[in-house]
This record gives sequence, structure tokens and C-alpha cells, in this order.
Amino acid sequence: MQGVAVVGIGMTPISAKSEKTLIELFVEAATEAMEDAGADRIESMYVGNMLSGFLQNQKHLGALMATALGKEGLPAYRVEGACASGGVAANAAVKAVLSGLEKTVLVGAVEKMSGYTTSEVTAGLMMAEDRTRVATTGATFVGLNAMIAREYMCKCKLPHEQLAEFPVLCHDHALSNPRAQFRKKITVQDVVNSPLVADPLRLYDCSAIGDGAAALVLAPLDRAREFTDLPIVIAASAVATDTLSLHQRGDLTTFAASRKAAAQAYELAKIGPEDVDLLEVHDAFSILGVMALEDLGFTVKGSGIQLVKDGACYRGGRLPTNTFGGLKARGHPVGATGIYQLAELALQLSNMAGKCQVPEAHVGLSQSIGGIGSTVTVHILERVD
Amino acid sequence: MQGVAVVGIGMTPISAKSEKTLIELFVEAATEAMEDAGADRIESMYVGNMLSGFLQNQKHLGALMATALGKEGLPAYRVEGACASGGVAANAAVKAVLSGLEKTVLVGAVEKMSGYTTSEVTAGLMMAEDRTRVATTGATFVGLNAMIAREYMCKCKLPHEQLAEFPVLCHDHALSNPRAQFRKKITVQDVVNSPLVADPLRLYDCSAIGDGAAALVLAPLDRAREFTDLPIVIAASAVATDTLSLHQRGDLTTFAASRKAAAQAYELAKIGPEDVDLLEVHDAFSILGVMALEDLGFTVKGSGIQLVKDGACYRGGRLPTNTFGGLKARGHPVGATGIYQLAELALQLSNMAGKCQVPEAHVGLSQSIGGIGSTVTVHILERVD
Repeated sequence: MQGVAVVGIGMTPISAKSEKTLIELFVEAATEAMEDAGADRIESMYVGNMLSGFLQNQKHLGALMATALGKEGLPAYRVEGACASGGVAANAAVKAVLSGLEKTVLVGAVEKMSGYTTSEVTAGLMMAEDRTRVATTGATFVGLNAMIAREYMCKCKLPHEQLAEFPVLCHDHALSNPRAQFRKKITVQDVVNSPLVADPLRLYDCSAIGDGAAALVLAPLDRAREFTDLPIVIAASAVATDTLSLHQRGDLTTFAASRKAAAQAYELAKIGPEDVDLLEVHDAFSILGVMALEDLGFTVKGSGIQLVKDGACYRGGRLPTNTFGGLKARGHPVGATGIYQLAELALQLSNMAGKCQVPEAHVGLSQSIGGIGSTVTVHILERVD
Repeated sequence: MQGVAVVGIGMTPISAKSEKTLIELFVEAATEAMEDAGADRIESMYVGNMLSGFLQNQKHLGALMATALGKEGLPAYRVEGACASGGVAANAAVKAVLSGLEKTVLVGAVEKMSGYTTSEVTAGLMMAEDRTRVATTGATFVGLNAMIAREYMCKCKLPHEQLAEFPVLCHDHALSNPRAQFRKKITVQDVVNSPLVADPLRLYDCSAIGDGAAALVLAPLDRAREFTDLPIVIAASAVATDTLSLHQRGDLTTFAASRKAAAQAYELAKIGPEDVDLLEVHDAFSILGVMALEDLGFTVKGSGIQLVKDGACYRGGRLPTNTFGGLKARGHPVGATGIYQLAELALQLSNMAGKCQVPEAHVGLSQSIGGIGSTVTVHILERVD
């Protein structure tokens, strides 16, 4: 799969409480992506979003955002896969370009989560779980992830202090990202001393509520140089699913959908994990960052955090991970996050990552998760030299 | 565009209050479509739905429905374009097949609207309109469509009795559709004597709340004969948008998005309206059925209803329209309707429409609308002889 390129990138800063509306956030990111591509004439739009129906009482974001961008008339619709909505919107946009029906395509994703109570946001997020058998029990995603963390810590004999290395990594990387929600260095002690949210997960194990939007312009690879001197190829776009709920699964310490999406992505890109030199993973909770390193094939079960402790995941290491701060520190405006990850990979691969730049990267992989590992997207981006 | 075929069809009956859950409805239609195709081994799923987040507190239908079908693991996500959600899901599925990344693809759409108050359903539907400037005014879709009907009736000097011919046509056709929500013959007098809902629209001008699901299996045309002796080609899949609200438009008596989507579909299929001999239009309100006949190019503005009165739109006529009863009488489970239309066209073109069968049809066109003409999909299906 070598037919699609990223030719434009736009991202808003992520904020705990943006003054901008859902529409204004989307328009800011989309306009920046179109200006970056020098391509005002896009042919279609795909919009990733999870919660606007519930929080803003606003569905129908395809037509709404097309009009807001001054592009009324354009084919446009919304794609949803819970917190992986940005990732699945990217998948739809990639297929649109590969279909030959559309050439210059905008994929943008947005979430506005501030201005609501924690209960309201939590209720919205729980719609990603099975309503009839889990959401109604009072379970929350931090609770479900805590169950996974507890199981993982027992099985792999890992103390919480070691999980805490993941948010420390992300906060370190976010220090140099001007768009990050949290630009504050933290230590393992800060994590283990932060308030308990759902045992064993503490406040600093968890990503926060945030507002933001990100967008990409995609084009067929053979036309990409009309837009940019350094197109970034989308070498793979893969989606896999799993049961919505943990009670339907065997092993809690691995996500089958991550493994499946990764296997399919490696096959499409004709590479293996050993060829990846840049990574964006879905660390909504510290445990998920650690599991991702294992499920995506970079190390064996139980050893994920070792890659962080060894320095491999830091910017100078052999597998720089979440180089703009990841979900924990860059921020996690849920339906938009999958596009932030792709935008950040593309900036790194084009040597446009500013103070976040890693020395030398040719192949980047991103993983986005919806629900409790129930929808996983994996994209592989490559620099064309 | 000649690369994709319909090779399997499934539809549940549409009911004012189904005893089945959202999941059971989807599984029934999807299973029927897979059995029809003899294809248990589908490679991906696209799910059209508008309201499950709001009504059932359940998002994330891609992974949920894949698991419910026993297909956990499969790539699956939801596509939304308000009441055109089924239509845009079909568009995403068509692009998936054309992309070459997936071959045997299931597209299913479902809506469960019963069990809630009319206020709740109305509030859900209004999320298709602009929240900040229209939905908060207390406007409803029947009210907005009534404004269009009033303007049309003034401009085209059409009395309400003539609009009423459209629901009469649909009820006549639904008499022989065992899946139809309303199998009851009505007359123009019944329509004009039915209770006023929003002047000039009366109860029988309006489609009703209903539960239902429909599904298709799609495959590349060159592999379609592995599944069926009579594949139906999807010769065009087009989407266009417009502003979300009427106050942003000039002429209320035509939908620019209908005209744009139709023009694009005709171009893709390399045909014109004169080549179409079967039609499914989005008659959520009688006025929309009439406008569709004009906007899709079958007659000039103001003359739409003449095609119904002349008998052209009846099953024996030259342009049989809504031959299973349309939104008014087959039913309108909003996010699912776009797939019902495609399934019905495919049944007609394969001579499998039972008592609804029209004599001879080779080319069928369907139009699905989201919001007040804000998202329109047009598909063209052709029989391969």
C-alpha cells in the first residue's frame, strides 16, 4: 500500500478549556492543513469525532464543518470509532484516495470536552462500552483500565513505580511541544504521590479532559509533489476490533485488536517492528502505553516499560515514543487524538518537528484505541528519500 | 465507476415498536445479507446509524456489531451523516472495495427509535441541525419542511391536495411489501383530513418513527459471480452537502446538494436521468418526494407531482418510484433508510422483488437526505445483462 501521501498538516494547541467552539477548533486545524498543503481546492472531507452529539447536542459534523470551512457542497461525513474516531476517519480518508474517486482529501478530527462536569464527560465516554451489560454497572474507563493494570502488575510482577515511567516520559517530551496541554516535568515520585483515582491508577497515570482539533490533507502519492517537496507516505492503514467488554476476553494484559491491526499494517507496509524508528501510542492510561510497546511487537510481554527505562523511548533513543507528549501530556481530545498522532509522525519524518525533532527517522507507526482495546487503528508513515 | 457489486441483501421488517434490540435488529439484517451472498467470510464492516448514542446511550457500533455477529476482530466502524447515515455508510463501503484493501464488505445500518417520547426522538433528530442558531429556537424538522412546503406551494401555485398524491403513491406501493410499516391504502382525502402537524403539512404528509435494519454485502464486480448469478453493479456513489440551515440559503424549493450529488452520480455512471427506470427518493415529508423528482432531473421545477398524477411513478409507469413504499409507508428508521433503498433497488433489478416487482428495470437511482437537504447521497445501480 503505497498510494497515499500526507501533504498538509494542521493542529490546534490542546487546552483544558479552550475559548473556541467545536466549529472554531475544527476550522483552525483544517485551515492550517490546507494552507500547509497550499491546497484550497480539496475534493472531500472526513470528520472524526466521538462526543459532539452528547456534549454539544450537535451531530451531522460533515455538512456542518464543510460549510464552516466555506466548502459547502463538498462530500463530507463523520466517522466514529469511540476514542479511535480520528484513527478510523484517517482510514476512511485513505480508502477514499485509494478508490480513485477523490484526490485531494481533508481528514480532520475534533473534540470539545471542557465546560461539562466530570460526570457528564464520563457518561459520554462510557458510551464506548456495552450499555446493557457494563456501562449500567457504574464502571468507568479508568476503573476498567485499573483492572487491567492490576492484572498486569500481578502477572508481570511489576510495581506501580515502574508503570509511572511512562507518564514521566510523556511529560518530558511535552516540555518542548508548544501545543501540549501539560508542559511540566514530573518524576516517578510525583506519579506515585498523586491522588489515587482507581487503584492502582493515580491521577498522573491518566490522560486528562481536553479540547483540540487536528487535520491532514491527503493526496495520491504520484501527485504529492504538486503540494510539497517532502511528501510523507501512508504505507499502511489498518483497523481491527475486539469485544466491547473485558468479561468477554481471556487475557487482560494484551489487546488482540492491537496485535491484529499491527500485523495487518506490517503486512501492508512490508516491514516489521524492527524497521520502525518512531512511535505514537495510545497512552490514555500509563498501562496502555506499556502494553502498546508489547502488543505492537517491540518487546515481549512484561518488558514494555524496560524500553522506557533503558532510554529507548526518549528522543535520543532507538525507538522515540510519543515525542510530542502523547495522550498524557500533549493531551487527549478523544476523537481528535488519532489525527494528532499522524500529524506528529509526519512532522518528525519531514524534519519539521521543531524542538521536538528526533535525530533521524524514516518510518513511524501510530496506534489509536477506542474503548477498552475494542477498536484499534495502526498507521505506518514513511519518509520518501 | 463500475467496480463494485451488490451480492447480498438483508432487511428486517420495519415496525413502530420492534421487540428486538438495536443489536438484534442489526444482526438479523446482516445475517440475512451474508446468507444471501453465501459469504460468511466478510473482510470488513461499515455501520450506518444516527441516534444510538442519544437514544440507547450506545456508541462504538463498529466493534459492537462485529462482535454481535461473531466477527470480532474485523475492521469495523460507524459512519454518520444524520438521516443519510445509511447512504454515507454505503459510500464508505464502496470506497473500501474500490481501494483494493478489502474485498467482501458488509455495510449495515440500523435505527431503533421506539420506546422513547416524541420529544426525545425530536430532540435527537434536531442534532442534525445547527445547534447554536436553529435547534435552540424550538424549530423541528417537520416545521422546517413545512416552511419549504409553504414556499413551494406559493411559488409553484400548488394546492396541498396535490402534494398529497405522493403519500398516496407510497401507501399504494407498500400494500404489497411484507416488511412495510404501513400496509394500508390511503386517499388524497385521507391525507388532507389527517391532523395538522405543521401547517401545511398534515400527519399523512410525514414519515413515522420506526425500528429497522438493512444490510448489503458488496464485492468487486470481477468476483461477484462467485456469490450470485445476477450481481447488481453500483455504477455510482455520490455525496454532496449544503449549509445546515435554511436561513443560509437562497431558494428554499430546491436542494443544491441533491442537484450536485445527482450530477456527480450521472457523471460517474455515464448516464442521464432519461436512462433511469426505477427510483427511490427520500420522502420523509411529501414535499421532499416532489422536490426530489425535480432536483434529480426527471422534470422541471413545479412539475414533480405531475409525474405521480400521470401514473409515471406507479409500478406500471415509466419511472416507478418508492416501489416498496418509500419513507412514508415502508418506514424511515432514520440512519438505516439509505440501505433499505439500495436493497430495494437491488431486489427490483434482480427480479427478486416479489409482489413489489416492476415489469422491466435495468437502471435504478436512490437519493438519501440528511438534515434539511444538508447531506445528500445518490447511488445508481445497474443490472448486468
